[in-house]
Amino acid sequence: MSLLDGHPLTMLARVDSPTDVAALSLDDLGLLAQDIRELIIATVSENGGHLAPSLGVVELTLALLKVLDLSQDKIVWDVGHQAYAYKILTGRRDAFHTLRTMGGVSGFPRMAESPFDHFGTGHSSTSISAASGMAMARDVLGESGKVVAVIGDGSMTAGLAYEGLNEAGGDGRDLVVVLNDNKMSISKNVGALSLFLSRQLSNRWVKRAKKEFESMARHVPFGLEMVELARRGEESFKGFFTPGMLFEAFHFNYLGPIDGHDLPKLVSVFKDVREMKGPVLVHVLTQKGKGYTPAEQNPTYYHGVGSFEPETGEIIKNSPSKLPTYTDVFGDTLCKLARTDRRIVAITAAMPEGTGLSCFAQLFPDRFVDVGICEQHAVTFAGGMATRGLKPVVAIYSTFLQRSYDQIVHDVCLQNLPVTFCLDRGGLVGEDGATHHGVFDLSYLRHIPNLVLMAPKDEAELQRMLATAMAHPGPAAIRYLRGVGIGAPLCDAPEPLTVGEGELLRDGKDAVIVAIGSRVLPSLLAAEELERESGLSVAVYNARFVKPLPEADLLDLAGRFGRIVTVEENAVQGGFGSAVLELLADRGALTGQRVLRLGIPDHFVEHGPQKALRELTGISKDGVKRALRGLMEEGTAS
Amino acid sequence: MSLLDGHPLTMLARVDSPTDVAALSLDDLGLLAQDIRELIIATVSENGGHLAPSLGVVELTLALLKVLDLSQDKIVWDVGHQAYAYKILTGRRDAFHTLRTMGGVSGFPRMAESPFDHFGTGHSSTSISAASGMAMARDVLGESGKVVAVIGDGSMTAGLAYEGLNEAGGDGRDLVVVLNDNKMSISKNVGALSLFLSRQLSNRWVKRAKKEFESMARHVPFGLEMVELARRGEESFKGFFTPGMLFEAFHFNYLGPIDGHDLPKLVSVFKDVREMKGPVLVHVLTQKGKGYTPAEQNPTYYHGVGSFEPETGEIIKNSPSKLPTYTDVFGDTLCKLARTDRRIVAITAAMPEGTGLSCFAQLFPDRFVDVGICEQHAVTFAGGMATRGLKPVVAIYSTFLQRSYDQIVHDVCLQNLPVTFCLDRGGLVGEDGATHHGVFDLSYLRHIPNLVLMAPKDEAELQRMLATAMAHPGPAAIRYLRGVGIGAPLCDAPEPLTVGEGELLRDGKDAVIVAIGSRVLPSLLAAEELERESGLSVAVYNARFVKPLPEADLLDLAGRFGRIVTVEENAVQGGFGSAVLELLADRGALTGQRVLRLGIPDHFVEHGPQKALRELTGISKDGVKRALRGLMEEGTAS
Repeated sequence: MSLLDGHPLTMLARVDSPTDVAALSLDDLGLLAQDIRELIIATVSENGGHLAPSLGVVELTLALLKVLDLSQDKIVWDVGHQAYAYKILTGRRDAFHTLRTMGGVSGFPRMAESPFDHFGTGHSSTSISAASGMAMARDVLGESGKVVAVIGDGSMTAGLAYEGLNEAGGDGRDLVVVLNDNKMSISKNVGALSLFLSRQLSNRWVKRAKKEFESMARHVPFGLEMVELARRGEESFKGFFTPGMLFEAFHFNYLGPIDGHDLPKLVSVFKDVREMKGPVLVHVLTQKGKGYTPAEQNPTYYHGVGSFEPETGEIIKNSPSKLPTYTDVFGDTLCKLARTDRRIVAITAAMPEGTGLSCFAQLFPDRFVDVGICEQHAVTFAGGMATRGLKPVVAIYSTFLQRSYDQIVHDVCLQNLPVTFCLDRGGLVGEDGATHHGVFDLSYLRHIPNLVLMAPKDEAELQRMLATAMAHPGPAAIRYLRGVGIGAPLCDAPEPLTVGEGELLRDGKDAVIVAIGSRVLPSLLAAEELERESGLSVAVYNARFVKPLPEADLLDLAGRFGRIVTVEENAVQGGFGSAVLELLADRGALTGQRVLRLGIPDHFVEHGPQKALRELTGISKDGVKRALRGLMEEGTAS
Repeated sequence: MSLLDGHPLTMLARVDSPTDVAALSLDDLGLLAQDIRELIIATVSENGGHLAPSLGVVELTLALLKVLDLSQDKIVWDVGHQAYAYKILTGRRDAFHTLRTMGGVSGFPRMAESPFDHFGTGHSSTSISAASGMAMARDVLGESGKVVAVIGDGSMTAGLAYEGLNEAGGDGRDLVVVLNDNKMSISKNVGALSLFLSRQLSNRWVKRAKKEFESMARHVPFGLEMVELARRGEESFKGFFTPGMLFEAFHFNYLGPIDGHDLPKLVSVFKDVREMKGPVLVHVLTQKGKGYTPAEQNPTYYHGVGSFEPETGEIIKNSPSKLPTYTDVFGDTLCKLARTDRRIVAITAAMPEGTGLSCFAQLFPDRFVDVGICEQHAVTFAGGMATRGLKPVVAIYSTFLQRSYDQIVHDVCLQNLPVTFCLDRGGLVGEDGATHHGVFDLSYLRHIPNLVLMAPKDEAELQRMLATAMAHPGPAAIRYLRGVGIGAPLCDAPEPLTVGEGELLRDGKDAVIVAIGSRVLPSLLAAEELERESGLSVAVYNARFVKPLPEADLLDLAGRFGRIVTVEENAVQGGFGSAVLELLADRGALTGQRVLRLGIPDHFVEHGPQKALRELTGISKDGVKRALRGLMEEGTAS
């Protein structure tokens, strides 16, 4: 059997199910680890994916499967981007080459994909809470089995993980938390917790304890013997003050730290853990990217990658585009604006690279904060800054900003504070799938009073929207898509837009398309092609603002056109098109026009290429054309 | 000067500003504390409010104002329900009798109300993040001044507080956190943190340290002297292991615990703290309700109260209604359903009493969890339970469930898990004001795929909706209002409704009102009065389901009526009326009807009586009548 050309992966070929893993000897497990790494590297080098996290936990995964009985035991993989080995070993070996492709194996655990995916993940820090819920269900229903949450040290910085630890520890349920400590989250680690895990704090306590011990010893009338005792005391204290104390504070039994690549040790520890009761935390030290030199050397880069040359690690540019991404343009423009306005500060939640803020962080280190995976804190923190005269820019992916909904409402908009939210990855993100699409933001932000909500049609408009937000005295949000711009000419000193002003890009007679953000240019192309192909005369309007809407223009268009199509890369429910409908209804401007709203339909969209997903959801250029043709066929509107 | 009939409050009369506080002697501050308590008790006994928390921090407030200079120093009061003394001392003494009344002093800090309210609060656990942001702004702008966050031990259980501590400690900014430890949050405290603060954990560590010490001493060849040393060691360890270690783990300097009613001590400590740099945590022990015996004895009851007789503490029932509240009916019905279905479990976030789950907790202690102020965890925890066959019911106030938006999307609805969300206080809550109104829930939930979203017209319908949710195999949410029902006959075994089925309550000819939840009966009354008063014939439809909508009925009504009015106690943007509009547009059923959507307009609504606020926002019975009359005057629809 050959899984990869020229690589027999003979050990992996023998493993069809988790029980096959349990039957292997430790030596065979070592060979299996090699095969798994080969398959992961080969697959991710083709399809892209989360390479470094998955390579780091191969031995950990094998040890868990060796010891656990998945017919009753359950595993929750926090975030889930480290679960490739688990997927390969739980029935998805032969399908693994379809990783992240449309209809193929998902990049994250998904309950719908496999009975072995016990909880779907994608967003960080849910595992302890979910596992705790499973443990409670087991106890209520009188069932048995271990529940294991595997969580990275980066994920531990999020409040949700702390809430889970606090409750699970206080409650005393039988639960295993494996802390996969690779000394980084996605980017470098931040905050007090990481210092704690790195033993800096224990060292501080050792010093204090030694001092206390010496002062105590001074009152006892012995000479040299006491010096010896003090020395021994220090040694003893060093063993006493472990990173485990933090978890003991949460009433977890602490085991570790354990070398996460030492398979025999891991197996032996998990065998012990299986016999323990109550909350147990196993602290495992792993190396991100383990076994693949390029990823070991640059784990941040290889955290999530596109295609690369497996021999060298060299990145393959599928489309050798010279165009900048929206992320790049955002970061670059913010730096430009910040040069002349020292009140501009930037905040990221563990994603300086992903959100384009690395350059800002280098240029303005005192005005940049990476708060860790703490989206809630990021927003309230920014609110506090804004009360004292700063202009904070909070750059968080659309899907992750969902975690800050309450803070956006309560700590920023209610107080009308000038915080700017920059939502990268707004819209369909592609291969990361349902957990990562940013398709709800227009709906979850639009109803919040005081917020100005924008989406640019291209990278030049993103620049202007950023300038608009910086000039606006209240809260503002800009959402833009994942990927490259269209080559619109960029500008060193972008002019602010007038809030609530859109633009008519093309006039027409038969219908009007009112589009927002990423859907403006496809709509324009659709209109042009419809004219060429069918002689249809379709106007295209770029609304720019979801809130406040360009009311006068929209009312004017509603008066002129009997067919109105709205297009957005956001849920159709409660989104931009819904806002347009509301406006027209409120002003009595709905006099029988046909209003068709295109957007993401009311179901979760799975993974696949962005282009294919846009086609599937009917918001591509061709989708817009089809919709307009359908509308024309319905007959003349009243 | 007399602030209260028969109570001269002479010391308070001398304090017009915070600087006046700073000028007082410690003895005079003691007298001032008495005056403040009298004014708080007298006012809250009339207006209702958060009595016990505010009584507990009178000395703490005085000490802070004695030491700080509010021309540059800033205070953030976490949650803000303890800030009455602060309000009285910072310019709102003479207006304090208007507390929580319409147009009067707010029950929470509000930046718009006073320059001394440095950050508006209302939801828990924001203070460390906000204060940290203020501290960063100070440093970036080269200003000076202390920033102080005052946070209760209950609020410390929320993930947001942990995120703030971790980031602030890691960053090392100059920041003071005052931990107001009253050994409870709103109800009893939960989780590992509270055990830590109560020293149970330090005791465990003392034991372990003693054991290590003894084992060490055994290897040193001395006799009795070593026993003495071991004894001293134990004493020393007792001092070493303090609740402060948890905060030291976050790189805070820890001071405490300090008696929070010992004014001289507090003043002296805060003077020291003012000279310190970097993150400092001051642990202050206070008694909730201090100085008022009924509140000291029952702090949970007097946490937030209505009017009471100040001499005795006896509660005054303003409207001696015998009708049960929605909260009561929810709790009672859930108990009934849980008797016959052992898979039903209930989860609250620190509000067993407020959400009506006290009875459930007593009857089914193994199937009830109070997770503390951890709304995020509550939802993911429930998601975990649902994967293993339980039917979790998560009961959280509408405004607080905002914190779980991401978890509802990602951990429950994406996986289509049968979790039921019961949103108490959906709609305008009255005197608690803008931070507490539950007026966004229909908008922030409606666009989430897979979720069934309901709102009952009365308490009997709430019963049926709960039965519906228990029978539904996916996620469901029910939102109901704060207050009493209408006396609808209750039922021991409520029948499930058909999902997506509404009811026509009254037919008509001239217009139709499509209402949801609390607005159904006022709409019915409006229709009846309009007929009596003006001969108008208005149909009234109870939609019951915001999602899925009763589509066939609504399309039928749209075909029959040229005037359609939707009514909801939720933001008009993206809410129920918006859903109705979307449906009609999508199906081509908008043929020129006039659709008017009544709901909460696009601004934050302040505090005041529920009835008055409903009048103000145009969603009362009279508001509906006015809207319909206006619609009729617009002339005949096409």
